[in-house]
Amino acid sequence: MSVQGLSINLATLRSHYGFAAAVDACLAYGITAIAPWRDQVEAIGLGEAARIVKMNGLQVTGHCRGGMFPAADKTGLAAAIDDNKRAVDEAAALGADCLVMVVGGLPGASKDIESARAMVADGLAAVLPHARACRVPLAIEPLHPMYAADRACVNTLEQALDLCDALGTGIGVAIDVYHTWWDPKIRAQIARAGRNGQILAHHICDWLVPTRDLLLDRGMMGDGVIDLKQIRGDIERAGFHGPQEVEIFSSENWWKRPGEEVIATCIDRYRTVC
Amino acid sequence: MSVQGLSINLATLRSHYGFAAAVDACLAYGITAIAPWRDQVEAIGLGEAARIVKMNGLQVTGHCRGGMFPAADKTGLAAAIDDNKRAVDEAAALGADCLVMVVGGLPGASKDIESARAMVADGLAAVLPHARACRVPLAIEPLHPMYAADRACVNTLEQALDLCDALGTGIGVAIDVYHTWWDPKIRAQIARAGRNGQILAHHICDWLVPTRDLLLDRGMMGDGVIDLKQIRGDIERAGFHGPQEVEIFSSENWWKRPGEEVIATCIDRYRTVC
Repeated sequence: MSVQGLSINLATLRSHYGFAAAVDACLAYGITAIAPWRDQVEAIGLGEAARIVKMNGLQVTGHCRGGMFPAADKTGLAAAIDDNKRAVDEAAALGADCLVMVVGGLPGASKDIESARAMVADGLAAVLPHARACRVPLAIEPLHPMYAADRACVNTLEQALDLCDALGTGIGVAIDVYHTWWDPKIRAQIARAGRNGQILAHHICDWLVPTRDLLLDRGMMGDGVIDLKQIRGDIERAGFHGPQEVEIFSSENWWKRPGEEVIATCIDRYRTVC
Repeated sequence: MSVQGLSINLATLRSHYGFAAAVDACLAYGITAIAPWRDQVEAIGLGEAARIVKMNGLQVTGHCRGGMFPAADKTGLAAAIDDNKRAVDEAAALGADCLVMVVGGLPGASKDIESARAMVADGLAAVLPHARACRVPLAIEPLHPMYAADRACVNTLEQALDLCDALGTGIGVAIDVYHTWWDPKIRAQIARAGRNGQILAHHICDWLVPTRDLLLDRGMMGDGVIDLKQIRGDIERAGFHGPQEVEIFSSENWWKRPGEEVIATCIDRYRTVC
């Protein structure tokens, strides 16, 4: 039995399985879409990972992740651009729907977020021709504002789409409910992204109350306050019908439970609250 | 010796002093502007607090706080409105520059943030005539998006100013750097607020990297990544020249240090990095 419309981001199963075992576990539950992280692919080898994807007819809803552009100097930025081109190559080899871009925060002890944002724009512009040539769309993932300093200085969907509009074709957004649910402009910006065909991925989880850790306390769908059905409806009306990709960082809960329980719960919640 | 332009929000000294002792400690360091919380005023009594303010010629840069409108039903909203009117009366008795409004998050187990935002608009509209009559400006404080669920569903300066524009005179914003520094639109929105005379307060502290707790890990100015001088410059260019009000919630650091050290450090940092 296949579970249509559901993808598992392999960070969700990071503590349980390597790449091959994660694929096997997903397939055992009828899930045929995944999104791996670069370290997980590197551990098994890109060739072997691509072979597993192809042999099983998997959809790769995203390759995680490129980005991290802001650097203390031009050498650092150039190195980041080179690394992003390699990530594009990996995404191409895996046949991924997109390369997810977590753009990076403030370099070193900088307080200059405007300069960081300018470096992000420069970095994306430098990687984009290679991405277009490889037919790998770049998906900017706006991250929650609480990550502006240390992970990503692109923090709203509007800001990400302004960047996309400035950069042209071959680039869009990954909309993660965790990062965007609070935004008073989310519905209008989803519609805007849809008009321009810029929605490349839809990530799901939930926002817990209380949230006990800024990074590693994401909730399972249904355990928090995000209106997942409404956001999904908006995204579908905007023309995106790809899988919903479950991405849960949860050091104290889901990462400690058995992998099979995590997958089974993802499926159950996907069917009831998403 | 007086320290011009610096106000101490008494939450910063919550663990050290009650209202009267906090005022004495501030005065000993030449600080003549404060912003108390309702529970601190209630503990000493409104009349006595107002007497201390008047006797010492203190500026009260804000009374903390009104808001918390979203409720499970109309009875709850009506109770919140009544309580806000009492907070207006307190602010008037203290001669406060404004009543700070932390508008409230999702009521109960609700996932409907649009309804919560509608209740906020209704609540503010219901309190505003009384606030105008008492000559107490209401200052909407947009809170960081990480508090959207449990503290305030007004999360950007743009959203707060849109509300102010819809509500008319007698209402503006309290701009707290902790909540707004990450916003790609902050500079434009500060300028917009200035054009309409809507800046009522400027709160300062810093964003630490890493931030270890969502609520109680605010940093002392200079210990984090916020470009305080730039934001202050923007606010002054927008026409607001009131004191910078230090508001630091810090359960594991500043709340554990001696009160005099906290005040002395606030003054030192105010002079060097703000």
